Amino acid sequence: MTSEAERAVLAAIDDERIIADLRDLVQIPSVDGTAAETVVQAWCAERLGALGVSVDHWRLDLEALTSDPEFPGMEVERDEAWGCVGLLGEDGTPGLIFNGHVDVVPGDAFEARIEDGVMWGRGTCDMKGGVAAILGAVAAIVASGIRLLKPLAVHTVIGEEDGGLGAFATLRRGHRGEACLIAEPTAEAVIPANAGSLTFRLEVPGLATHGSTRSRGVSAIEKFTVIQHALQELEAKRNQDPHPLLTHLDLANPLSVGTISAGDWASTVPDHLIAEGRYGVRLGEPLDEARKVFEDAVAGIEDEWLRDHPVKVTWPGGAFASGVLPDGDPLLTDTVQTVIDTGRPAPEVRGAPYGSDLRLYAAAGIPTLQYGPGDVRYAHAADEHVVLADVLHAARTYALLAVRRCG
Amino acid sequence: MTSEAERAVLAAIDDERIIADLRDLVQIPSVDGTAAETVVQAWCAERLGALGVSVDHWRLDLEALTSDPEFPGMEVERDEAWGCVGLLGEDGTPGLIFNGHVDVVPGDAFEARIEDGVMWGRGTCDMKGGVAAILGAVAAIVASGIRLLKPLAVHTVIGEEDGGLGAFATLRRGHRGEACLIAEPTAEAVIPANAGSLTFRLEVPGLATHGSTRSRGVSAIEKFTVIQHALQELEAKRNQDPHPLLTHLDLANPLSVGTISAGDWASTVPDHLIAEGRYGVRLGEPLDEARKVFEDAVAGIEDEWLRDHPVKVTWPGGAFASGVLPDGDPLLTDTVQTVIDTGRPAPEVRGAPYGSDLRLYAAAGIPTLQYGPGDVRYAHAADEHVVLADVLHAARTYALLAVRRCG
Repeated sequence: MTSEAERAVLAAIDDERIIADLRDLVQIPSVDGTAAETVVQAWCAERLGALGVSVDHWRLDLEALTSDPEFPGMEVERDEAWGCVGLLGEDGTPGLIFNGHVDVVPGDAFEARIEDGVMWGRGTCDMKGGVAAILGAVAAIVASGIRLLKPLAVHTVIGEEDGGLGAFATLRRGHRGEACLIAEPTAEAVIPANAGSLTFRLEVPGLATHGSTRSRGVSAIEKFTVIQHALQELEAKRNQDPHPLLTHLDLANPLSVGTISAGDWASTVPDHLIAEGRYGVRLGEPLDEARKVFEDAVAGIEDEWLRDHPVKVTWPGGAFASGVLPDGDPLLTDTVQTVIDTGRPAPEVRGAPYGSDLRLYAAAGIPTLQYGPGDVRYAHAADEHVVLADVLHAARTYALLAVRRCG
Repeated sequence: MTSEAERAVLAAIDDERIIADLRDLVQIPSVDGTAAETVVQAWCAERLGALGVSVDHWRLDLEALTSDPEFPGMEVERDEAWGCVGLLGEDGTPGLIFNGHVDVVPGDAFEARIEDGVMWGRGTCDMKGGVAAILGAVAAIVASGIRLLKPLAVHTVIGEEDGGLGAFATLRRGHRGEACLIAEPTAEAVIPANAGSLTFRLEVPGLATHGSTRSRGVSAIEKFTVIQHALQELEAKRNQDPHPLLTHLDLANPLSVGTISAGDWASTVPDHLIAEGRYGVRLGEPLDEARKVFEDAVAGIEDEWLRDHPVKVTWPGGAFASGVLPDGDPLLTDTVQTVIDTGRPAPEVRGAPYGSDLRLYAAAGIPTLQYGPGDVRYAHAADEHVVLADVLHAARTYALLAVRRCG
């Protein structure tokens, strides 16, 4: 059931503008660590400013942030980075924050091609679709002339994909709210919990020799195979008894090697291999405990060479603790009801196996959940895309939820 | 037994100068594809010229050579490359060629550190030790005043490690001889046969997805493990019945993956992996036949994903056919006798599992073998080194053999 004010806001949603915003956002190739991250934040600041929203657009003090003991980590180099917060309404604690990250993982499709109601390209799903929907919701509230009793905040952030620099900086700057919705792609579900994740790095030693006498050397690539097997066993063990919010998943706590590199000559047995990957942290599992389990599994591999030449395990880049919405927090029921009231079926409520900025907001004491257009299975994929109808629906849900939380 | 002339030549060997030459050579970091290849050839041309030897020092016509249908391949980029041939004596076909390559594989030790009679560093063993010994032999013949009846040729070449550009160019320029000794490290043995080798490249497809939902993707790294297993089986099969000249080896026909690279993000399941390696070609096995056996083994892997998404196999870089000294050629007995006459035990005669420029000389109809200081097990290794006494002994053997073949 919707009120008259709510219907006025919904009527003010400008579908074409949302799609145009999404196209503009996707066409800025804001890959983590590139200058386009700065470009996309400037775009957001200008867009929010044009809506008549007060904007805090500031350059991040990278030195101070990265030396903060709680800094969540960073996997790329950055000389410059910007924060952007829009605030609609009077002073006071915002009744709701909409958060969206505007960085994307590397890719090569930035044309924002639209075909049959679907937009294709890097960032369409993860998560510029969500950001465009947020902007559409704010624009509709402004256009409707509704006056919010509590402010509504919009946080656009960079660096989510490689650790959470942007969200960390935004919270360190003092931006807060009574609750936060992150517009990450959730494929119709409402996600009140994120398993965590850590980025691991393995350095595997070998013994170089000419390939023609390979049995006199030790191939770091062959030794990696042994380690990979141990990691597969570790993953299986950690998925035997998943958290109730994660039982819908094939793998609640996946472990995946993402990059590998070894050798500098086809005819030389490689004496060094570097692999990096993603290690799922269980809901509620402290990061240090998760790290220790992994390190013990690698150290415990029964292999004569590796026993005498241990694999070096380090933890570069992002450390994503798990995070969860407090039990019984009204944000969950409010969001579920709003999804229904904007014409979609009652959403499934489930945890997600991936970390996100949710855990940073949760750690700052802000009840936070995720709900947004797109399916995370296409995030980071070559065929990344988002259904435009889902983006437009999300804009309606956000607009209504904002009115309900702040109105 | 040595003649008076031979003893005069041996007496003229200048040990200090040989070691100084070796140090100079090692300190030029002539890694394949770097400008230092040109520097080291200029050094050789100048050194040979200073000995009073006539020198052919020419710039290679890379366009013509690389488009020659018989071009053996090249694994690095080159804008410039040089040949260098020294000729001691009158006109006519040289009675003997000494060949040494002056390129080295990548490394980081170029100081030519000497400790307890051993020189350490990239190229000491493979094969600047042999080149210094050749120069020492030529210098001794010149210094002794002996007049050779047939010319003695010295070929220094680049590009041996990545295919044989230098030797190919030298032979294409028309340089010939009645026989050729290549001063590759042979660890006291005389090597009249080289198994061949091919460089293979595998491109393994996967299906990218976010690491948190890895079971929805296909890791190219995991698929590589399947391929690696098939390659290990292929290697075992190809080593069941080795050639009589190769039975002393653990592996007559080794197959070794030298480089591997996949993925651009720790949290993304990698959809593409590239691996390159060295594939041993049996003595006498045609290259095309060897390629087909490999390709069939990869194509025959029983894996649902790979069946629908075939691994791409290509053959970049050097193609080393096998090569062998004709049965009964006197170069073998001459070399063995000369080694004995310079005070070492009768050398073992055996084939080597690696390809070298031998096959190019053999293919040009020049009876060729390898005998040189150093142990190939340290070639390309981090602890590459050569025992200086072995270099000095090789110089004596070369000097005596030259007098016997050309005197």
